[in-house]
Amino acid sequence: MQKPTLPKGTRDFGPVQMAKRNFILDTIKETFRLFGYEQLETPAMENLSTLTGKYGDEGDQLLFKILNSGDFLKKVTPQDIQEGASATLSKVAEKGLRYDLTVPFARYVVMNRHELTFPFKRFQIQPVWRADRPQKGRYREFYQCDADVIGTDSLLCEAEIILMIRRVFEKLGIQDYSIKLNNRKVLTGIAEVIGEAGKEGPLCVAIDKLDKIGREKVEEELLERGFGPAAIQKLAPLFESSAENISEVLTFLEDFLQASEIGLQGIKELQEMLQLLNSLGANQEHLVLDFLLARGLSYYTGAIFEVKAHGVQIGSVSGGGRYDDLTGVFGMPNMSGVGFSFGVDRIYDVMEELGLFPDQTLTGSQVLLAHFDGKAYGYALGVLSKFRAQGIRAEVYPDLTKMKKQLDYASKKGIPFVAICGDDEIKNETIAFKNLETGEQESMKVEDAINRLI
Amino acid sequence: MQKPTLPKGTRDFGPVQMAKRNFILDTIKETFRLFGYEQLETPAMENLSTLTGKYGDEGDQLLFKILNSGDFLKKVTPQDIQEGASATLSKVAEKGLRYDLTVPFARYVVMNRHELTFPFKRFQIQPVWRADRPQKGRYREFYQCDADVIGTDSLLCEAEIILMIRRVFEKLGIQDYSIKLNNRKVLTGIAEVIGEAGKEGPLCVAIDKLDKIGREKVEEELLERGFGPAAIQKLAPLFESSAENISEVLTFLEDFLQASEIGLQGIKELQEMLQLLNSLGANQEHLVLDFLLARGLSYYTGAIFEVKAHGVQIGSVSGGGRYDDLTGVFGMPNMSGVGFSFGVDRIYDVMEELGLFPDQTLTGSQVLLAHFDGKAYGYALGVLSKFRAQGIRAEVYPDLTKMKKQLDYASKKGIPFVAICGDDEIKNETIAFKNLETGEQESMKVEDAINRLI
Repeated sequence: MQKPTLPKGTRDFGPVQMAKRNFILDTIKETFRLFGYEQLETPAMENLSTLTGKYGDEGDQLLFKILNSGDFLKKVTPQDIQEGASATLSKVAEKGLRYDLTVPFARYVVMNRHELTFPFKRFQIQPVWRADRPQKGRYREFYQCDADVIGTDSLLCEAEIILMIRRVFEKLGIQDYSIKLNNRKVLTGIAEVIGEAGKEGPLCVAIDKLDKIGREKVEEELLERGFGPAAIQKLAPLFESSAENISEVLTFLEDFLQASEIGLQGIKELQEMLQLLNSLGANQEHLVLDFLLARGLSYYTGAIFEVKAHGVQIGSVSGGGRYDDLTGVFGMPNMSGVGFSFGVDRIYDVMEELGLFPDQTLTGSQVLLAHFDGKAYGYALGVLSKFRAQGIRAEVYPDLTKMKKQLDYASKKGIPFVAICGDDEIKNETIAFKNLETGEQESMKVEDAINRLI
Repeated sequence: MQKPTLPKGTRDFGPVQMAKRNFILDTIKETFRLFGYEQLETPAMENLSTLTGKYGDEGDQLLFKILNSGDFLKKVTPQDIQEGASATLSKVAEKGLRYDLTVPFARYVVMNRHELTFPFKRFQIQPVWRADRPQKGRYREFYQCDADVIGTDSLLCEAEIILMIRRVFEKLGIQDYSIKLNNRKVLTGIAEVIGEAGKEGPLCVAIDKLDKIGREKVEEELLERGFGPAAIQKLAPLFESSAENISEVLTFLEDFLQASEIGLQGIKELQEMLQLLNSLGANQEHLVLDFLLARGLSYYTGAIFEVKAHGVQIGSVSGGGRYDDLTGVFGMPNMSGVGFSFGVDRIYDVMEELGLFPDQTLTGSQVLLAHFDGKAYGYALGVLSKFRAQGIRAEVYPDLTKMKKQLDYASKKGIPFVAICGDDEIKNETIAFKNLETGEQESMKVEDAINRLI
């Protein structure tokens, strides 16, 4: 007899995990909706022509491809086999699994450009699949949770992203975290100022590793990537700056970037965003201006965000930024947008580590009806319906069995109350209402038990 | 420039469709939870060894297979190619996409048998994929929405399924429908009584087509399937019975099946289920006892359910039944269970056809803040925050543009109210609150507008 297993890198989510995940996702959805974002869902499968070439060579390798249905070999020759997998791929697979939510979003916008009203604000919460090597905290199937606005370059979108992040974290009870901000134009300006104009790409890639490998290794990498020693020397003030609060950092940057028009433009955008935040009646709590923040993604053209939770092993739990041309690759140029993503798995781990999940995430039954015999079972069914009629999640143990087994069932499932039914209860039209946590048991009318649970 | 398309048989769900789908799914989830069912999610991918052989030969053909990552050809020889797809398949694909929610559920139960508390009541709402030929109403990706109890043969589960179906349909506003009931043992009994004991399988397959092809063709098919003319003759009372309400039908069946012990057992189960329904304080509304109801699925061993909506083209919108051995194939025998499934796409179509979606399915913004100039924009941002602080879904048009464009935006997005901000409003600390449906516009304090929207 075969023993079933899960494909590596995938997970089941049982009842307890689902309740906790839903607590996070419901909080995020409610926040997105409060800010006027509407939900989109796209298919798990996309044409490979939609997906390939969008995530770099490595990304193409990590796409899960779906074998054509029917006789998938019909176009394949023995010679193809000798030439190898890449020659054969296009003949056996036309579709792949979604790798992220951004490319399907761009595809949706382009296909529905004539029906959509711009600016278009959408959120999307769906799994994505990557054929990565599985390891702790890295899965082959995981949820992404994205919100994007497309069709406007208003910096209000950036300001509202900050508000949404703060609202979600407040509702989840995560208090100790930073929202790091930067602007790609600041990074471009830095490249100009150090005399390596146009090389902010490799500059970002190297600087992005600062937290992990330290300044010295970053400088080594920059040398390897062809940056001159003079340029690297000119970066020094950035590594050494002691500016802390936002206005100090802005002052420092204005000085450092004075020779770069685009750099100063980046500063202006940051200032305008902060001004909009002020108009919205919000302060600068949790905000950190991190002018070395680059994030790996090279398509950001304006704001860059990253959220870090403090006091936990896990670092970045959310991130995003502005891109000027998301849909150009599908033939619809000049659509500026800004988006960000909550890392649901990581937020889950942070909340677990900090013990932040409230008891109310429980979505299982609130009360179990237990019974001593067939007659009591019949009585319990009537009581059950009264609980449910008031919206109380309730169930009856469905078989005639020992009371201990019924209490064990409630206890193992985390059902907090048991309403025990026997001859006395039938006679007095009551229930014996037992709190499993304290062990207390009290005889009462069903209506009184209902009032305690509502 | 490539023009992107969707893989055939797949769909995007835009904001309006998502809001309507969520209305249906939220209603179903709330009902499942009220009855003590808890949510499970399993991965989109399963090992092919888990999936194949569970859905018959046709099902195996319809499984979407995922190409092994990396050099998927490494085990394939030119000779394999000449032998064909089925010889090569196991060398290029080890995983497939979920085909239904039942097999992954069985796999989950077996893998977690030592941690689970039985009876285990779970619901699961996730997409499934089938490489079927796409046609109207049939997709290659669609949601299933299942609830099952496993580990008890209590007929209370059947009675509660009826209550859940009725509650969901009541909340959705679907009034005209039948819940057809039968029991596999009744069908087994019928086979015995007509002298074709053990042939209820082919009998069911043929009878299942009664609605579509009529009695005559069913009889022809039975002949072809090896049923004798005498046996077919003995079926006649079943086709001709005029028994209508449940007690009449039960009386008729008791008479017809008197020579079959198992048939009478089926009747007893139906009676007990109706008795439990009575103990739960529920009537028999919407119930129809249809002793020819078979549904294609041969693994049902007890109760069989099917829900039909009336007055619409679409027929069956929900169905299920009891199975005695769901997990045996994975090495865990004798787990009786009962489950059913809501057809979400079909319920959606029924509600659309009958115009049953309430306006409250709207989950987009309730109010748009519009502004005449930069100064009014700043003012609008303050007002915006007041709306949101009270939980009202609100947004501001993020760019400085003509009023007409802002009103068009609200109108196209179905935002019902616009709060217009200009010099007068700033001076008087008010908004011009416009109802886009009626065209009415009124000057008022923000607090008054909030009170209207809460």
